[in-house]
Amino acid sequence: MARGVTHERAECPVARAVDVIGDRWSLLIVRDAFDGITRFSDFQRNLGLAKNILASRLRDLTAAGILEAVPAAEGSAYRKYTLTEKGRELFSLIVAIRQWGEEYLFEDQEPHSVLLDTEHERPLRRLEVVDSTGRALTSSGTFVRKVSHGDARS
Amino acid sequence: MARGVTHERAECPVARAVDVIGDRWSLLIVRDAFDGITRFSDFQRNLGLAKNILASRLRDLTAAGILEAVPAAEGSAYRKYTLTEKGRELFSLIVAIRQWGEEYLFEDQEPHSVLLDTEHERPLRRLEVVDSTGRALTSSGTFVRKVSHGDARS
Repeated sequence: MARGVTHERAECPVARAVDVIGDRWSLLIVRDAFDGITRFSDFQRNLGLAKNILASRLRDLTAAGILEAVPAAEGSAYRKYTLTEKGRELFSLIVAIRQWGEEYLFEDQEPHSVLLDTEHERPLRRLEVVDSTGRALTSSGTFVRKVSHGDARS
Repeated sequence: MARGVTHERAECPVARAVDVIGDRWSLLIVRDAFDGITRFSDFQRNLGLAKNILASRLRDLTAAGILEAVPAAEGSAYRKYTLTEKGRELFSLIVAIRQWGEEYLFEDQEPHSVLLDTEHERPLRRLEVVDSTGRALTSSGTFVRKVSHGDARS
Protein backbone atom coordinates (compact mmCIF):
# COMPACT_ATOMS: atom_id res chain seq x y z
CA MET A 1 0.00 0.00 0.00
CA ALA A 2 1.21 3.47 -0.74
CA ARG A 3 2.50 4.88 2.51
CA GLY A 4 5.75 6.33 3.77
CA VAL A 5 7.36 3.29 5.34
CA THR A 6 6.79 -0.20 4.01
CA HIS A 7 7.64 -3.53 5.56
CA GLU A 8 7.51 -5.42 2.31
CA ARG A 9 11.05 -6.75 2.81
CA ALA A 10 10.86 -7.07 6.59
CA GLU A 11 12.04 -10.32 8.11
CA CYS A 12 9.23 -10.22 10.62
CA PRO A 13 6.04 -11.85 9.31
CA VAL A 14 3.94 -9.59 11.55
CA ALA A 15 5.42 -6.51 9.89
CA ARG A 16 4.78 -7.78 6.37
CA ALA A 17 1.25 -8.81 7.29
CA VAL A 18 0.23 -5.51 8.86
CA ASP A 19 1.30 -3.73 5.69
CA VAL A 20 -1.33 -5.75 3.89
CA ILE A 21 -4.16 -6.05 6.40
CA GLY A 22 -3.26 -3.70 9.27
CA ASP A 23 -6.01 -1.25 8.51
CA ARG A 24 -9.44 -1.16 10.07
CA TRP A 25 -11.37 -0.85 6.82
CA SER A 26 -9.48 -3.70 5.19
CA LEU A 27 -10.22 -5.86 8.22
CA LEU A 28 -13.91 -4.95 8.15
CA ILE A 29 -14.13 -5.67 4.42
CA VAL A 30 -12.62 -9.10 5.07
CA ARG A 31 -15.08 -9.61 7.94
CA ASP A 32 -17.97 -8.71 5.61
CA ALA A 33 -16.64 -11.03 2.92
CA PHE A 34 -16.71 -13.86 5.46
CA ASP A 35 -20.34 -12.92 6.12
CA GLY A 36 -21.11 -13.42 2.44
CA ILE A 37 -21.08 -9.84 1.21
CA THR A 38 -19.78 -9.65 -2.35
CA ARG A 39 -21.03 -6.43 -3.99
CA PHE A 40 -19.59 -2.95 -3.82
CA SER A 41 -22.93 -1.42 -2.89
CA ASP A 42 -23.46 -3.92 -0.08
CA PHE A 43 -20.01 -3.31 1.38
CA GLN A 44 -20.70 0.39 1.11
CA ARG A 45 -24.07 0.21 2.84
CA ASN A 46 -22.79 -2.04 5.58
CA LEU A 47 -19.60 -0.14 6.30
CA GLY A 48 -20.85 3.37 5.66
CA LEU A 49 -17.56 4.49 4.25
CA ALA A 50 -16.81 6.81 1.37
CA LYS A 51 -16.91 5.19 -2.07
CA ASN A 52 -13.39 6.27 -2.99
CA ILE A 53 -11.96 4.75 0.18
CA LEU A 54 -13.92 1.53 -0.32
CA ALA A 55 -12.78 1.33 -3.95
CA SER A 56 -9.17 1.86 -2.92
CA ARG A 57 -9.32 -0.80 -0.20
CA LEU A 58 -11.01 -3.32 -2.53
CA ARG A 59 -8.32 -2.65 -5.11
CA ASP A 60 -5.54 -3.15 -2.54
CA LEU A 61 -7.09 -6.36 -1.18
CA THR A 62 -7.50 -7.69 -4.71
CA ALA A 63 -3.93 -6.76 -5.63
CA ALA A 64 -2.76 -8.53 -2.47
CA GLY A 65 -4.55 -11.70 -3.55
CA ILE A 66 -6.95 -11.66 -0.59
CA LEU A 67 -10.05 -10.93 -2.67
CA GLU A 68 -10.77 -11.76 -6.26
CA ALA A 69 -13.09 -9.75 -8.44
CA VAL A 70 -15.28 -11.54 -10.97
CA PRO A 71 -18.21 -10.28 -13.05
CA ALA A 72 -21.41 -10.66 -11.02
CA ALA A 73 -23.09 -12.29 -14.03
CA GLU A 74 -22.12 -12.99 -17.60
CA GLY A 75 -21.71 -9.74 -19.45
CA SER A 76 -22.50 -7.76 -16.30
CA ALA A 77 -20.65 -4.55 -15.55
CA TYR A 78 -20.96 -5.34 -11.83
CA ARG A 79 -18.20 -7.18 -10.10
CA LYS A 80 -18.40 -9.57 -7.21
CA TYR A 81 -15.63 -9.72 -4.64
CA THR A 82 -14.95 -13.03 -2.95
CA LEU A 83 -12.20 -14.29 -0.68
CA THR A 84 -9.41 -16.31 -2.20
CA GLU A 85 -7.82 -19.14 -0.24
CA LYS A 86 -5.28 -16.61 1.05
CA GLY A 87 -8.18 -14.47 2.18
CA ARG A 88 -10.09 -17.32 3.77
CA GLU A 89 -6.99 -18.13 5.78
CA LEU A 90 -7.51 -14.83 7.59
CA PHE A 91 -10.36 -16.52 9.44
CA SER A 92 -8.39 -17.19 12.62
CA LEU A 93 -7.23 -13.57 12.63
CA ILE A 94 -10.80 -12.28 12.37
CA VAL A 95 -11.87 -14.72 15.10
CA ALA A 96 -9.00 -13.50 17.31
CA ILE A 97 -10.10 -9.89 16.82
CA ARG A 98 -13.71 -10.81 17.55
CA GLN A 99 -12.94 -12.76 20.71
CA TRP A 100 -10.75 -10.00 22.10
CA GLY A 101 -13.47 -7.45 21.34
CA GLU A 102 -16.13 -9.59 23.01
CA GLU A 103 -13.99 -9.97 26.10
CA TYR A 104 -12.82 -6.40 26.56
CA LEU A 105 -15.02 -3.97 24.70
CA PHE A 106 -18.52 -4.83 25.92
CA GLU A 107 -20.18 -4.44 29.28
CA ASP A 108 -21.25 -7.64 31.00
CA GLN A 109 -24.84 -7.70 29.80
CA GLU A 110 -24.32 -5.69 26.65
CA PRO A 111 -25.58 -7.51 23.56
CA HIS A 112 -23.28 -8.20 20.64
CA SER A 113 -23.35 -10.34 17.55
CA VAL A 114 -22.00 -13.86 18.07
CA LEU A 115 -20.12 -16.28 15.86
CA LEU A 116 -21.71 -19.73 16.03
CA ASP A 117 -20.92 -23.05 14.43
CA THR A 118 -23.61 -24.09 11.96
CA GLU A 119 -23.98 -27.59 13.36
CA HIS A 120 -24.67 -26.87 17.04
CA GLU A 121 -25.35 -23.14 16.81
CA ARG A 122 -23.06 -22.60 19.76
CA PRO A 123 -20.27 -20.10 20.29
CA LEU A 124 -16.79 -21.27 19.35
CA ARG A 125 -14.07 -21.99 21.87
CA ARG A 126 -11.55 -19.30 22.67
CA LEU A 127 -8.54 -19.53 20.40
CA GLU A 128 -5.60 -21.05 22.18
CA VAL A 129 -1.94 -20.54 21.40
CA VAL A 130 -0.28 -23.94 21.79
CA ASP A 131 3.24 -25.28 21.43
CA SER A 132 4.24 -28.17 19.17
CA THR A 133 3.12 -30.67 21.82
CA GLY A 134 -0.31 -29.07 22.21
CA ARG A 135 0.37 -27.31 25.52
CA ALA A 136 -1.30 -23.92 25.93
CA LEU A 137 1.08 -20.96 26.06
CA THR A 138 0.96 -17.32 26.99
CA SER A 139 3.40 -14.84 25.52
CA SER A 140 5.77 -15.35 28.46
CA GLY A 141 6.32 -18.94 27.36
CA THR A 142 7.56 -17.83 23.95
CA PHE A 143 10.32 -15.81 22.33
CA VAL A 144 11.11 -14.57 18.85
CA ARG A 145 14.28 -15.83 17.17
CA LYS A 146 15.46 -13.29 14.63
CA VAL A 147 17.07 -14.25 11.38
CA SER A 148 20.83 -14.59 11.86
CA HIS A 149 22.94 -13.61 8.89
CA GLY A 150 25.84 -11.61 7.69
CA ASP A 151 24.27 -10.24 4.53
CA ALA A 152 21.10 -9.02 6.05
CA ARG A 153 18.60 -6.29 6.08
CA SER A 154 17.71 -5.42 9.65
CA MET B 1 -9.38 7.31 18.09
CA ALA B 2 -10.13 10.52 16.31
CA ARG B 3 -11.43 9.60 12.88
CA GLY B 4 -14.56 10.19 10.85
CA VAL B 5 -16.56 7.06 11.56
CA THR B 6 -16.33 5.25 14.87
CA HIS B 7 -17.60 1.83 15.82
CA GLU B 8 -17.54 2.50 19.52
CA ARG B 9 -21.21 1.56 19.86
CA ALA B 10 -21.22 -1.15 17.19
CA GLU B 11 -22.81 -4.44 18.06
CA CYS B 12 -20.10 -6.31 16.21
CA PRO B 13 -17.07 -7.06 18.40
CA VAL B 14 -14.83 -7.03 15.32
CA ALA B 15 -15.88 -3.47 14.52
CA ARG B 16 -15.25 -2.22 18.06
CA ALA B 17 -11.91 -3.98 18.17
CA VAL B 18 -10.59 -2.61 14.88
CA ASP B 19 -11.33 0.89 16.10
CA VAL B 20 -8.86 0.24 18.90
CA ILE B 21 -6.19 -1.91 17.28
CA GLY B 22 -6.94 -1.91 13.54
CA ASP B 23 -3.91 0.14 12.65
CA ARG B 24 -0.56 -1.17 11.52
CA TRP B 25 1.52 0.95 13.89
CA SER B 26 -0.59 0.06 16.89
CA LEU B 27 -0.22 -3.62 16.01
CA LEU B 28 3.55 -3.29 15.63
CA ILE B 29 3.83 -1.44 18.94
CA VAL B 30 1.92 -4.28 20.61
CA ARG B 31 4.21 -6.79 18.86
CA ASP B 32 7.26 -4.94 20.16
CA ALA B 33 5.79 -4.79 23.65
CA PHE B 34 5.45 -8.59 23.55
CA ASP B 35 9.14 -8.69 22.59
CA GLY B 36 9.99 -6.77 25.75
CA ILE B 37 10.40 -3.27 24.37
CA THR B 38 9.27 -0.68 26.91
CA ARG B 39 10.92 2.67 26.13
CA PHE B 40 9.87 5.33 23.70
CA SER B 41 13.33 5.52 22.15
CA ASP B 42 13.46 1.75 21.63
CA PHE B 43 10.04 1.65 19.97
CA GLN B 44 11.15 4.54 17.83
CA ARG B 45 14.41 2.92 16.77
CA ASN B 46 12.78 -0.41 16.07
CA LEU B 47 9.80 0.92 14.16
CA GLY B 48 11.46 3.85 12.45
CA LEU B 49 8.38 5.97 12.65
CA ALA B 50 8.00 9.66 13.32
CA LYS B 51 8.05 10.65 16.99
CA ASN B 52 4.73 12.44 16.84
CA ILE B 53 3.01 9.40 15.35
CA LEU B 54 4.60 7.09 17.89
CA ALA B 55 3.60 9.42 20.74
CA SER B 56 0.04 9.54 19.47
CA ARG B 57 -0.22 5.75 19.13
CA LEU B 58 1.27 5.17 22.59
CA ARG B 59 -1.23 7.64 24.03
CA ASP B 60 -4.14 5.90 22.28
CA LEU B 61 -3.01 2.45 23.38
CA THR B 62 -2.60 3.67 26.94
CA ALA B 63 -6.01 5.37 26.89
CA ALA B 64 -7.49 2.11 25.58
CA GLY B 65 -6.01 0.22 28.54
CA ILE B 66 -3.75 -1.91 26.35
CA LEU B 67 -0.50 -0.37 27.59
CA GLU B 68 0.26 1.24 30.89
CA ALA B 69 2.86 3.91 31.35
CA VAL B 70 4.93 3.95 34.53
CA PRO B 71 8.06 5.91 35.43
CA ALA B 72 11.13 3.96 34.27
CA ALA B 73 12.73 4.50 37.68
CA GLU B 74 11.81 6.38 40.82
CA GLY B 75 11.83 10.08 40.12
CA SER B 76 12.71 9.46 36.48
CA ALA B 77 11.21 11.59 33.76
CA TYR B 78 11.29 8.57 31.43
CA ARG B 79 8.28 6.36 31.18
CA LYS B 80 8.10 2.68 30.52
CA TYR B 81 5.24 1.20 28.54
CA THR B 82 4.14 -2.31 29.38
CA LEU B 83 1.18 -4.43 28.34
CA THR B 84 -1.77 -4.65 30.69
CA GLU B 85 -3.72 -7.89 30.96
CA LYS B 86 -6.04 -6.54 28.24
CA GLY B 87 -2.95 -5.97 26.11
CA ARG B 88 -1.43 -9.38 26.82
CA GLU B 89 -4.69 -10.94 25.69
CA LEU B 90 -3.89 -9.68 22.20
CA PHE B 91 -1.32 -12.46 22.00
CA SER B 92 -3.45 -14.82 19.91
CA LEU B 93 -4.23 -11.97 17.53
CA ILE B 94 -0.53 -11.20 17.03
CA VAL B 95 0.16 -14.92 16.57
CA ALA B 96 -2.64 -15.12 13.98
CA ILE B 97 -1.14 -12.20 12.06
CA ARG B 98 2.33 -13.77 12.25
CA GLN B 99 1.21 -17.20 11.08
CA TRP B 100 -0.72 -15.78 8.14
CA GLY B 101 2.29 -13.66 7.18
CA GLU B 102 4.62 -16.66 7.41
CA GLU B 103 2.33 -18.69 5.20
CA TYR B 104 1.55 -16.17 2.50
CA LEU B 105 4.10 -13.37 2.44
CA PHE B 106 7.42 -15.19 2.20
CA GLU B 107 8.97 -17.26 -0.54
CA ASP B 108 9.61 -20.90 0.27
CA GLN B 109 13.21 -20.56 1.37
CA GLU B 110 13.06 -16.95 2.43
CA PRO B 111 14.22 -16.49 6.02
CA HIS B 112 11.98 -14.86 8.60
CA SER B 113 11.94 -14.49 12.35
CA VAL B 114 10.19 -17.33 14.16
CA LEU B 115 8.15 -17.52 17.34
CA LEU B 116 9.33 -20.41 19.50
CA ASP B 117 8.26 -21.80 22.85
CA THR B 118 10.92 -21.27 25.50
CA GLU B 119 10.83 -24.86 26.71
CA HIS B 120 11.45 -26.78 23.47
CA GLU B 121 12.55 -23.89 21.25
CA ARG B 122 10.23 -25.15 18.58
CA PRO B 123 7.69 -23.29 16.44
CA LEU B 124 4.15 -23.18 17.77
CA ARG B 125 1.27 -25.05 16.20
CA ARG B 126 -0.98 -23.26 13.75
CA LEU B 127 -3.90 -21.63 15.53
CA GLU B 128 -7.05 -23.59 15.03
CA VAL B 129 -10.60 -22.29 15.13
CA VAL B 130 -12.64 -24.93 16.97
CA ASP B 131 -16.26 -25.33 17.95
CA SER B 132 -17.48 -25.93 21.50
CA THR B 133 -16.76 -29.65 21.16
CA GLY B 134 -13.19 -29.08 19.97
CA ARG B 135 -13.80 -29.83 16.29
CA ALA B 136 -11.78 -27.71 13.84
CA LEU B 137 -13.83 -25.31 11.73
CA THR B 138 -13.34 -23.16 8.68
CA SER B 139 -15.45 -20.08 8.09
CA SER B 140 -17.96 -22.10 6.08
CA GLY B 141 -18.86 -24.03 9.22
CA THR B 142 -19.84 -20.86 11.05
CA PHE B 143 -22.28 -17.99 10.87
CA VAL B 144 -22.80 -14.70 12.69
CA ARG B 145 -26.00 -14.21 14.65
CA LYS B 146 -26.79 -10.53 14.88
CA VAL B 147 -28.38 -8.97 17.93
CA SER B 148 -32.17 -9.13 17.64
CA HIS B 149 -34.03 -6.25 19.20
CA GLY B 150 -36.65 -3.63 18.75
CA ASP B 151 -34.78 -0.75 20.36
CA ALA B 152 -31.56 -1.15 18.53
CA ARG B 153 -28.78 0.61 16.80
CA SER B 154 -27.96 -1.16 13.59
